[in-house]
Amino acid sequence: MSYEKSLEILKSHLNPYEKIEKIALTQCLGRILAQEIKAPKNHPEFKTSAMDGYALKFEDQSKALTLLGSTPAGTMPQFCIKEAQCVKTFTGSLMSEGSDTLVPVENVEIKGNQICVKEAVKKGFAVREIGENYKEGEILLKKGTKLDYSEIALLAELGFFHISVFIKPVVGILSSGNEIKDLGETLENPAQIRSSNHIALANLAQKLVCKSVVFPLLKDDEKQSKKALENALESCDILITTGGVSMGDFDFLKKAVREYAIIIDKVDIKPGRHIKIASFKNKFIVALPGFPYSAMVMFNLYVREILNFWLLQKKDYICQAFLCDSYMKKTPYLEFVACNIYFENGRILANLKGKKDGSSAIINNLNHKSALMMVPKECTSLKDGDLVDIIFMP
Amino acid sequence: MSYEKSLEILKSHLNPYEKIEKIALTQCLGRILAQEIKAPKNHPEFKTSAMDGYALKFEDQSKALTLLGSTPAGTMPQFCIKEAQCVKTFTGSLMSEGSDTLVPVENVEIKGNQICVKEAVKKGFAVREIGENYKEGEILLKKGTKLDYSEIALLAELGFFHISVFIKPVVGILSSGNEIKDLGETLENPAQIRSSNHIALANLAQKLVCKSVVFPLLKDDEKQSKKALENALESCDILITTGGVSMGDFDFLKKAVREYAIIIDKVDIKPGRHIKIASFKNKFIVALPGFPYSAMVMFNLYVREILNFWLLQKKDYICQAFLCDSYMKKTPYLEFVACNIYFENGRILANLKGKKDGSSAIINNLNHKSALMMVPKECTSLKDGDLVDIIFMP
Repeated sequence: MSYEKSLEILKSHLNPYEKIEKIALTQCLGRILAQEIKAPKNHPEFKTSAMDGYALKFEDQSKALTLLGSTPAGTMPQFCIKEAQCVKTFTGSLMSEGSDTLVPVENVEIKGNQICVKEAVKKGFAVREIGENYKEGEILLKKGTKLDYSEIALLAELGFFHISVFIKPVVGILSSGNEIKDLGETLENPAQIRSSNHIALANLAQKLVCKSVVFPLLKDDEKQSKKALENALESCDILITTGGVSMGDFDFLKKAVREYAIIIDKVDIKPGRHIKIASFKNKFIVALPGFPYSAMVMFNLYVREILNFWLLQKKDYICQAFLCDSYMKKTPYLEFVACNIYFENGRILANLKGKKDGSSAIINNLNHKSALMMVPKECTSLKDGDLVDIIFMP
Repeated sequence: MSYEKSLEILKSHLNPYEKIEKIALTQCLGRILAQEIKAPKNHPEFKTSAMDGYALKFEDQSKALTLLGSTPAGTMPQFCIKEAQCVKTFTGSLMSEGSDTLVPVENVEIKGNQICVKEAVKKGFAVREIGENYKEGEILLKKGTKLDYSEIALLAELGFFHISVFIKPVVGILSSGNEIKDLGETLENPAQIRSSNHIALANLAQKLVCKSVVFPLLKDDEKQSKKALENALESCDILITTGGVSMGDFDFLKKAVREYAIIIDKVDIKPGRHIKIASFKNKFIVALPGFPYSAMVMFNLYVREILNFWLLQKKDYICQAFLCDSYMKKTPYLEFVACNIYFENGRILANLKGKKDGSSAIINNLNHKSALMMVPKECTSLKDGDLVDIIFMP
């Protein structure tokens, strides 16, 4: 099955995710908005001063002006400005009726109760117009917006205190393998390794605004695998398994996953060719390889695709870069190759320095500033200067 | 004072930040490592199989091979391979002594207790060499590394459970202004506005791995300002104030800040020209303008600079982009202009679409995918196609 076909099948099994909760604005950094936000009124609602100065009529700048008083910020203007009059007005204060221009304090000379403009400004200077920031009824934030500091500031300004966001989808992680030991456990022999997949996948899920649940490590046992899968699935929206899906005699997890409705079984890609995805009551089981690098890449290709759909996220993490290395393709499959990305003179560059082929350790391949280079099925090699498709990791 | 000079002065007042805590590996996503991590041994420690197959001597592939047994993953190899012998070996299993090559299961034919290789592989195929991922004593993570999923996976693999990270610097936010009301408060008249600065700055600080403390909103009162500043400073490493620093009669915060050792007072930049920074016992007071856009930009230029030094972060958020618009400079200062960034055909492009000049709302200017374009002091205009310096926001 081709990668494109596998995505098509996956998408055909996706249903909208409608789990919504209301949380305090002070707690919603990075969460996904589940409501649309419209401007309830113009902003600013009235003409407002953008500087400290004197509100007056534009055509009066050459006259001696009588100072009527002041409008401190936060108070309503008390005066109506007529010919040759002005009102001291502060940054953020409303402009007085009859005024159309603000002359900054630096531009005037004060003589008792009168001021003279030493340096004239253009009409409307330092006056923030009604609706300058946004107009009544304007859609300010769409459903699916990731709430960053600027969106949160807007919601505060609008007076929101509670916001509807998507409940974090629960991503469960079930790692398997007799050779795997958990954090804090003693290795009994040099053939055993410490599990790193479960914690890496848990953190990846958290970065994609999910709650992660790490289930106890699973031994290679047929009966246990089946039961563990069944139990784990109850507690999550997406269950990720790692290991036990390739060609080994001890790959019992593969059998357990096959008891569910398999929608994807092996895809012509490298790494992760043995991936299996099953769908069950709007939940998904995604069976990933045990090699950490492969597991991370597959998470990015498939689990992220499900989350994009559920949380209304755009697939905006794909772009193009200029390759600064040559690359010989090793398989007849579509390959996802770890690369370094850097920005230089307005260009996005990719190289393969320090990237280890087929390595099980993800640190060199997927550290900060890494991405995946997509090498098409029909391509046999890439050369220096080629424009390649790259996928940023979360 | 020029921007360059102001940074130079700021840097001359910076001392190393040495607050370190030990936290569980499961809690350290996004935290900054405060120790160096070296590889305690080679990884893999022994030759390991990268696939499911048969371990054998390379030169024996044309012979009928006797199957001695198997080495399940996680167990020590039991056999020493001699001429025309092989051992079934699984993904992640150690290679048996005497073997140098792994032939995948797909490549062999099994006849009772013997196997025949149908398709030969090259020497060393699917064998992960000792130290392939990293060698004993190699520096794997430097102090100051931001812990992402791949670094966390590595630490798990190495057997770390507790990690030394920098304690999050405490960034306090003290917003001032009579016109400002807090979240949930009722606006008494249309001249009042709801504070958005404090929550935006708190979230920005959190994104830069700080703990934020939001102090009660401050009214424009000289005595209160002084006391509030004094109290707030006790609870934080960096105290940010907003508002009350320009030319207004009610800018009491300016006076209060001036009681400390001012190191920076006004810089030739736009926005944020009135910025003031005071230093006090290795703490900093950063007095920002009240306009949200200006405050966010100034935070990025100065507070981030302090945090970079303290938390050993590189200033890697500056690069160049091709401008796809023209821009007329409005002031004689170095300008930081909000722009949109997008990637196209391997190029980084910037445009000014939807960006509002001098706007107080930050939503249009600093939403997702925005950055700041630096327009040099001596520059008067920029044209379509110009290469410009841009700064990514956190």
